[in-house]
Amino acid sequence: MTEAEVFSAVEELARNARAASYKLSQLGTDQKNAILRAMAAELRARTAEIVAANALDIAAGEEKDLSKPMLDRLRLDAGKVEAIAKGIDQVVDLPDPVGQVMEKWTRPNGMHIHQTRVPIGTIGIIYESRPNVTSDAAVLCFKTGNATILRGGSEAFHSNTAIAAALQAGGETEGLPAHSIQLIPFTDRSSVSALCKMDKWLDLIIPRGGKGLIETVVSQARMPVIKHYDGICHLFVDAAADLDMSIKLAVNSKTQKTGVCNALETLLVHSAVAATHLPAIAEVLVEKGVEIRGCERTRQIIDAIPATEEDWETEYLDLILSVKIVDSLQEAIDHINTHGSHHTDSIVTGDQAAADAFLSGCDSACVFHNVSTRLADGEEFGFGAEIGISTDKLHARGPMGLRELTSYQYRVRGNGQAKW
Amino acid sequence: MTEAEVFSAVEELARNARAASYKLSQLGTDQKNAILRAMAAELRARTAEIVAANALDIAAGEEKDLSKPMLDRLRLDAGKVEAIAKGIDQVVDLPDPVGQVMEKWTRPNGMHIHQTRVPIGTIGIIYESRPNVTSDAAVLCFKTGNATILRGGSEAFHSNTAIAAALQAGGETEGLPAHSIQLIPFTDRSSVSALCKMDKWLDLIIPRGGKGLIETVVSQARMPVIKHYDGICHLFVDAAADLDMSIKLAVNSKTQKTGVCNALETLLVHSAVAATHLPAIAEVLVEKGVEIRGCERTRQIIDAIPATEEDWETEYLDLILSVKIVDSLQEAIDHINTHGSHHTDSIVTGDQAAADAFLSGCDSACVFHNVSTRLADGEEFGFGAEIGISTDKLHARGPMGLRELTSYQYRVRGNGQAKW
Repeated sequence: MTEAEVFSAVEELARNARAASYKLSQLGTDQKNAILRAMAAELRARTAEIVAANALDIAAGEEKDLSKPMLDRLRLDAGKVEAIAKGIDQVVDLPDPVGQVMEKWTRPNGMHIHQTRVPIGTIGIIYESRPNVTSDAAVLCFKTGNATILRGGSEAFHSNTAIAAALQAGGETEGLPAHSIQLIPFTDRSSVSALCKMDKWLDLIIPRGGKGLIETVVSQARMPVIKHYDGICHLFVDAAADLDMSIKLAVNSKTQKTGVCNALETLLVHSAVAATHLPAIAEVLVEKGVEIRGCERTRQIIDAIPATEEDWETEYLDLILSVKIVDSLQEAIDHINTHGSHHTDSIVTGDQAAADAFLSGCDSACVFHNVSTRLADGEEFGFGAEIGISTDKLHARGPMGLRELTSYQYRVRGNGQAKW
Repeated sequence: MTEAEVFSAVEELARNARAASYKLSQLGTDQKNAILRAMAAELRARTAEIVAANALDIAAGEEKDLSKPMLDRLRLDAGKVEAIAKGIDQVVDLPDPVGQVMEKWTRPNGMHIHQTRVPIGTIGIIYESRPNVTSDAAVLCFKTGNATILRGGSEAFHSNTAIAAALQAGGETEGLPAHSIQLIPFTDRSSVSALCKMDKWLDLIIPRGGKGLIETVVSQARMPVIKHYDGICHLFVDAAADLDMSIKLAVNSKTQKTGVCNALETLLVHSAVAATHLPAIAEVLVEKGVEIRGCERTRQIIDAIPATEEDWETEYLDLILSVKIVDSLQEAIDHINTHGSHHTDSIVTGDQAAADAFLSGCDSACVFHNVSTRLADGEEFGFGAEIGISTDKLHARGPMGLRELTSYQYRVRGNGQAKW
């Protein structure tokens, strides 16, 4: 397809999504839940079909020599399809934020103002290899009354197509409006740029994937984008930090799972306790197989590879940890604000004033006191589901649940109020 | 200056703004109010200086043959400087949203989660001729703990410089951090493009001005932008509309002030009452000097210039009104969603079900029942001040007060919670 053909095909999808969004915004919660149940049922009914479509992607991926982790992320079996369907069941059980009155008040002239949650409208989701995102993202957007355009990775094209078709077909049996969930039906790369220009029809783009993809979307999109580039999370062991808690939280934050955005990447240690705490923490980390890259002062206390300036801004996503000794709480905060990614940063301390200063001083979506960074997560926060974690500050920050997929509208009722 | 020089000068300002923002976020409400009072005092003390600077802009404007309305918007006298200072006094009296706990809850594992309002951080304001925006915008952003970079119109450069200098100098006497309020100290046009690339340092850009300026910012900005393009507001006279109220609200919405975004541009009339209501409404509008452009069916009932397709998407900002007859509530909603600008749309009706369907069906920031579109305004809503009206759906929609200049942060306190 030429770029112009891609553009006009994407525009057609986007225009249709807008039309669908006006129907979606009028659906009640019960009908949306009936549609969701029908989607889950159809996904289960089409398990064999979906697994067969996935086999095509796997075969093509093997031919293209995709890495084993990539193939693992791509692969579906009956159990994974069931897990996707179960995800839908869970979304059925979540409360619907649409229609909630956030605030209401009456003005001296008698106008009654309601600030009411409404769907955002139309959302483009651009994502990479995991085919379950096709369902997870579409279903959360649907529950909140939004129409979606899905642009998955080309390596998962057959899988994504089969999943999206099941959602749409299942949903339609319960009245899902046409074009509510549309997967871009071709793999041309220029469809990403085309989506970014659809600000007339698309209210929001959520890119989920590597930094390159997100950079492309940020530089091209004319509509709002909600994203997170990376998670360079810090744990600060304060002068008043309990030793056992320091060990526990450093080890959990770093090693419980490494390839995730809320894993620890840099440990900051107050110089007042470095001599006592750092060796004890390092011992357990090293036992767990963690490679330590330390600043000069760290290396005077424990064995460590010398850390470079680059280490302070690197998301390892691996069993590697950078360690720096700082002389004050303020130095820790400054380091985090300068080198971090404004995702999640935690302090270990028994000093309430230090904790408060850290929490209000760090410019991060999630700021923790005596809690593992791994708990920065929609499920852990109790949101029931998570569409992603935002390191932006506008609209949604941190873990995003259903509420973050809504906008609001001022509904004003009066009896002839005018301006004089 | 070369483009590279402009870029690096703007980057310096942006980096300094980020540093200032970390100090601003730590100021308490009392200190911020003391700073605001000192700003107002300094503005008043420098009245003669500001008016003299303004005279330079006016002289240059006259030489450049700026239109009379533009010169009027540009002109400052002692009274206008006093009005700017009074605006600051009013902001002192507004409650400070920073630090408010929006929600708090405890998880089964004992983590206490607070969702707390915090400043956004750094905000770029790009605006056109009115020099009062320099103070109005900077002061609202300051009250909410944000650092600002101001990029005013070149025709107001001397006035803006004098006002910004007064704010900074006055504020510093009470501890305003350096670089909290920075005006770009040159008029090169490429500073707008440079600001749009500062996503590392700037969290938000708010463009205020004509469509061309906003288009430029939207297409270039890598960070979030809050804007409104235009206000194509509708009033729908429903089948169950009271005649007197229809006349009152149509006349008020259209004629109370015309050059504003919440003025009426299109009147939709239900065919069931067109024969009775339309002539009566038109009579008063014509008396007030309004030119009517009507659809074919309108022109069978009243005198009107033929409306073209373009009229349905034109913001006249003048004594001109397009009028269309529709056969149903749904047709009115569809027309508004298709041709409107998602700003403010109002229904006149005595039918509660029709009103509810209109309010939930229109995809607009403000949806009104029996209220003049002119009341879509931060002051009228009781926000005390308004930084602008957003027709976007993310973060802020409709009139934006102080609260819309804040973000939030999840502050989580625990006693060793980890992920297992």
